Amino acid sequence: MHRFSKKVSMTVVKRLPKYYQYLTDLLLNDIEKISSKELASLMGLTASQIRQDLNSFGGYGQQGYGYNVLELREAIKEILGLDSDYTCIIIGSGNMGHAIANYERFKREGVMLIGAFDVDPLRVGTVVGNVVVKHMDELEGFVKNHDIDICILCVPRGVGQQVAKTVTDLGIKGILNFSPLDLDVPDDVVVENVNITDSLFTLTYLLKEVTDPE
Amino acid sequence: MHRFSKKVSMTVVKRLPKYYQYLTDLLLNDIEKISSKELASLMGLTASQIRQDLNSFGGYGQQGYGYNVLELREAIKEILGLDSDYTCIIIGSGNMGHAIANYERFKREGVMLIGAFDVDPLRVGTVVGNVVVKHMDELEGFVKNHDIDICILCVPRGVGQQVAKTVTDLGIKGILNFSPLDLDVPDDVVVENVNITDSLFTLTYLLKEVTDPE
Repeated sequence: MHRFSKKVSMTVVKRLPKYYQYLTDLLLNDIEKISSKELASLMGLTASQIRQDLNSFGGYGQQGYGYNVLELREAIKEILGLDSDYTCIIIGSGNMGHAIANYERFKREGVMLIGAFDVDPLRVGTVVGNVVVKHMDELEGFVKNHDIDICILCVPRGVGQQVAKTVTDLGIKGILNFSPLDLDVPDDVVVENVNITDSLFTLTYLLKEVTDPE
Repeated sequence: MHRFSKKVSMTVVKRLPKYYQYLTDLLLNDIEKISSKELASLMGLTASQIRQDLNSFGGYGQQGYGYNVLELREAIKEILGLDSDYTCIIIGSGNMGHAIANYERFKREGVMLIGAFDVDPLRVGTVVGNVVVKHMDELEGFVKNHDIDICILCVPRGVGQQVAKTVTDLGIKGILNFSPLDLDVPDDVVVENVNITDSLFTLTYLLKEVTDPE
């Protein structure tokens, strides 16, 4: 599969979770096969986009039959790396850290929260999700003793870069970044940003477009 | 400005909040002017991308001088619609609702939380951000008595579409959607999705690419 995925554009990659979600829904509704046209209509894409997207990964459909929902879902699950389990830690146990720690979906897809860290003495010792918050001083020892795949970063903007450096120096390769800044990380580290302020600003832009068109 | 913005691609629109953030940082550091080259290097773009992006909105730079940071920031603030204030409500006062309600940045940019709603009797009457959670039964009356611009949707996937229909029927035109589903809304309503699960899956995809390259 990797020989295909290297060529895949981020636009297509960004659509894969959506395919996964829709195929999961179809399975839950006992739908076993679907044409590219039907899937396209569900997802608000064109049938040709669907065929192109899936062809980037080697192609899964069968002319005149469409897609086997279970097979396609399993294939996309594998492409997304969700056939493996992941360990993760949360740094920053404020409201956002709590919200993420309690996301059932993460656990269901094999992303296991095994540690949480903070510098605030009022938060250290409290529980987020199913773990007890430790002080940041314990981070290095913890990461060295556990094999951590993902750091979920929920710290204030001002310390985001510094904490990102700490965790990447400790060998963590994936960061899900809720801190509102662009992180500078080594080439072999991947960052996915969830920038809620950016989303709000995109919304106010669009809102202006619909409510005040000229 | 609107005569330009209609043509602007979503890729450029999605970069505007980043421009706004970087220009705000520059101002805070007392930097008054910047060349497209310098701005590009800061933002990880090319100088030609920067010029193209800003030209989509009419162009703000001056040959041989670069950009006046304050002027450009004010222009982008206006393009993003942040020269206006917005009222918003949160529906769903779980962990995510709490996290968003406490986002200081929203208030600082003029997005005011004035109501929160839930169906859970244990949550009704509690405080999120600076408002008391009301029961969903009170939503209609509240929206009719206040002019609500934005609904921040933090409800479970299963009820997301139904709640979206309720708020758009009541005339709300903007939804910041944290519920993990694609909403079907009227053409004059805008939705910006913050799908955290999708971001996680993009990260696991990228993580697989860096840790298991072939």
